[in-house]
Amino acid sequence: MPKAVNTIINARWIIPVSGQNQTDYLQHHSLVIQQGRIEAVLPTATVDGNYTAEETIDLTDHALIPGLINSHTHASMSLFRGLADDLTLMDWLNNHIWPAESKWVNAEFVKDGTRLAIAEMIKSGTTCFNDMYFFPDISAQVAASSNMRATVGMIVIDFPSNWAADQNDYFDKGLQVHDQYKDHPLIQASFAPHAPYSVSDEPLQRIQMLAAELDVPIHMHVHETVDEINIGMENQQCRPIERLHKLGLLSPSLMAIHMTQLTPDEIQLVSETGTQVVHCPQSNLKLASGFCPVDKLVENNINVALGTDSAASNNNLDMLNEMQTAALLAKGVSANAESLPAIQALRMATINGAKALGIDNETGSLEAGKSADITAIDMKRIGTEPVYNPVSQIVYASQSADISDVWIAGKQVLKKRQLTLMDEKDIIEKARYWQKRIVSA
Amino acid sequence: MPKAVNTIINARWIIPVSGQNQTDYLQHHSLVIQQGRIEAVLPTATVDGNYTAEETIDLTDHALIPGLINSHTHASMSLFRGLADDLTLMDWLNNHIWPAESKWVNAEFVKDGTRLAIAEMIKSGTTCFNDMYFFPDISAQVAASSNMRATVGMIVIDFPSNWAADQNDYFDKGLQVHDQYKDHPLIQASFAPHAPYSVSDEPLQRIQMLAAELDVPIHMHVHETVDEINIGMENQQCRPIERLHKLGLLSPSLMAIHMTQLTPDEIQLVSETGTQVVHCPQSNLKLASGFCPVDKLVENNINVALGTDSAASNNNLDMLNEMQTAALLAKGVSANAESLPAIQALRMATINGAKALGIDNETGSLEAGKSADITAIDMKRIGTEPVYNPVSQIVYASQSADISDVWIAGKQVLKKRQLTLMDEKDIIEKARYWQKRIVSA
Repeated sequence: MPKAVNTIINARWIIPVSGQNQTDYLQHHSLVIQQGRIEAVLPTATVDGNYTAEETIDLTDHALIPGLINSHTHASMSLFRGLADDLTLMDWLNNHIWPAESKWVNAEFVKDGTRLAIAEMIKSGTTCFNDMYFFPDISAQVAASSNMRATVGMIVIDFPSNWAADQNDYFDKGLQVHDQYKDHPLIQASFAPHAPYSVSDEPLQRIQMLAAELDVPIHMHVHETVDEINIGMENQQCRPIERLHKLGLLSPSLMAIHMTQLTPDEIQLVSETGTQVVHCPQSNLKLASGFCPVDKLVENNINVALGTDSAASNNNLDMLNEMQTAALLAKGVSANAESLPAIQALRMATINGAKALGIDNETGSLEAGKSADITAIDMKRIGTEPVYNPVSQIVYASQSADISDVWIAGKQVLKKRQLTLMDEKDIIEKARYWQKRIVSA
Repeated sequence: MPKAVNTIINARWIIPVSGQNQTDYLQHHSLVIQQGRIEAVLPTATVDGNYTAEETIDLTDHALIPGLINSHTHASMSLFRGLADDLTLMDWLNNHIWPAESKWVNAEFVKDGTRLAIAEMIKSGTTCFNDMYFFPDISAQVAASSNMRATVGMIVIDFPSNWAADQNDYFDKGLQVHDQYKDHPLIQASFAPHAPYSVSDEPLQRIQMLAAELDVPIHMHVHETVDEINIGMENQQCRPIERLHKLGLLSPSLMAIHMTQLTPDEIQLVSETGTQVVHCPQSNLKLASGFCPVDKLVENNINVALGTDSAASNNNLDMLNEMQTAALLAKGVSANAESLPAIQALRMATINGAKALGIDNETGSLEAGKSADITAIDMKRIGTEPVYNPVSQIVYASQSADISDVWIAGKQVLKKRQLTLMDEKDIIEKARYWQKRIVSA
């Protein structure tokens, strides 16, 4: 007798990214959802007799992929999208972003900005994001209420902010967020020391100990620019990675973001310690920070995930667009057209992100037992026809407007391009309200 | 008394790209169209009393930009979109593209493929394309019937094809196309010798003379890859650019496509001869051909236009996406975040393309007297809000799905995302028909 389940999605293609398939994609397959989890992935022709569902959805021109994982964001900075562009990193930070942050960032800003970011992410197929920003309590709250999966950073930085007065205050407030969400099904906390040049040894040691004790990941900008290396050499007489290694931070718990400046020995060290790398190609290009040697990292069996960075240095949170840039750029940088093929770019944006965040048992691929975090892409569009290979087409030709439906933990958060849990009109009004305030100040 | 005109478009922003403005964009301005031409660009508040129109269109959240110019395509290859990806150039060409072309390319293929390409281009805001392919008579016909502006290449290549048997045949058939369209308002012909490695001296000399006589541009792949340079050194004992210079081809009439391999002396030569360069960043990345030194070309006052190349090596014909890649990549390659600011990327995709094609009196900017080739972009979207600077947002965050309306020579070819002159359903059916034939062969 057929098993009664919640939802059956019949799709033209399913790209499970499971690593166990002989083929990158399955044709005319169905995905079965029961109580928020993937019950099965099977040929559509074999569904009848095996399952009956409360709801059956036919996606005849669509591909299902695992929900995308944006492994590095500062979500609420979306309110600064396009505030300052085409500037060098130091001009951008010192004369635009940091003054704007110290003037405007508060709980209300983070709430409205994170809503804007999550709405954009869901509409572009992202079901999980790894955030670093002030007021992580608010980011967590907004994510939870939007049914969005998130890792929020317990940010630590040497200087005071509107969020925390001093080092102890950062730790205290961060740990409160950790405690509040430690049993939440969608939200986890990580430690987020900002960067080697902005966090001193003592808090880094404290983070290293606490992260091990609490079993949470660490999220940190590392080797983003040549300047950062120079500052490290001047202040600590060593390169930041060496310093982090001495402090015991290089490990599978560390997500090292950017990593554009790496010697062969450092790549070896990253590989040996199992350190996770998060590649942010568009941000690195836009700020002219350098090229992350993705090809060599992959060769050295380093897990590389993908992130957009904030909309202030990108200027979008669109992971399809980011995958395209990653796949194209890797070929240019390595002078090898076989580098980072489409399926590998998709892995970086899904399962590799889940591994980096330590949640690959829960999400990152379409496999029985995992949470039903699913993105559907409509492939029937003038710009994506014909389809010889759906994986290539998704990475090189699809755009976020093609994302039709999104589920997170089995709950449909995007239905035929409409957000089911968020008020899009209100979110845009709030974005415009902040822009007016900021411009007229 | 107000002047009676055909159309008034009231827009939130107008980005004229005229070079004469103090500012990159105008706010709350209107564009007036009369008999297919731009009559005026003026503040919306001053329209009443000056003009009355048969049709007034309010685009309250939109930016108007000049219709985009795709300065290098092989349009009908869209039917091969995604046929072969993540391969080295020689593997891709020898084992996939050239066999597929010799088997499938005929008049019917070019008709269906060019329709697919033009539909995609119009829906992504492109109003003019510069094509190189077999059966330019068919491409011209499809473009003319779609009210699309095009320059079609009189292709010349040393080996026979389904289009022409030998050198004389290429010239004869090409010149027939030229003669047929020489007074057409939207279509012009160029000479399109394929590449230095595939066209010998004699036809190049003939092209040089005929192009001067007929006053038509020349469209040629030049210095695309290191291999091409090596072949030139072996066969002609000089680099291809030197050979083209000896043959008298370097001039403002030549559009040199790709140009990823350039010495400082060659950049100087290109500058002195007024040779036009067309940059195709996504294709160059995807095939790992090298980086065009856009920054240095611009410094040397070389006119640089932008092209997508074919969908077989891209895999889209989306000029918004191409501008984004161009603006990001230039910063990475030059290690300077101030390189190729957004407005300059937009110039490459509009007026610079018109200059390269010799039609900048007719199109490429929104100025009184020019043809009404106009693209409207809806900026009210979660992923493009808020808007501090519409130019940044268009280049770094907008996507082709945001293109709402397009006019070519005053005729509206896209209306609220719907093609007015083309049957989208039929075009997709034809694309799928070809894909089935090609895959099952």
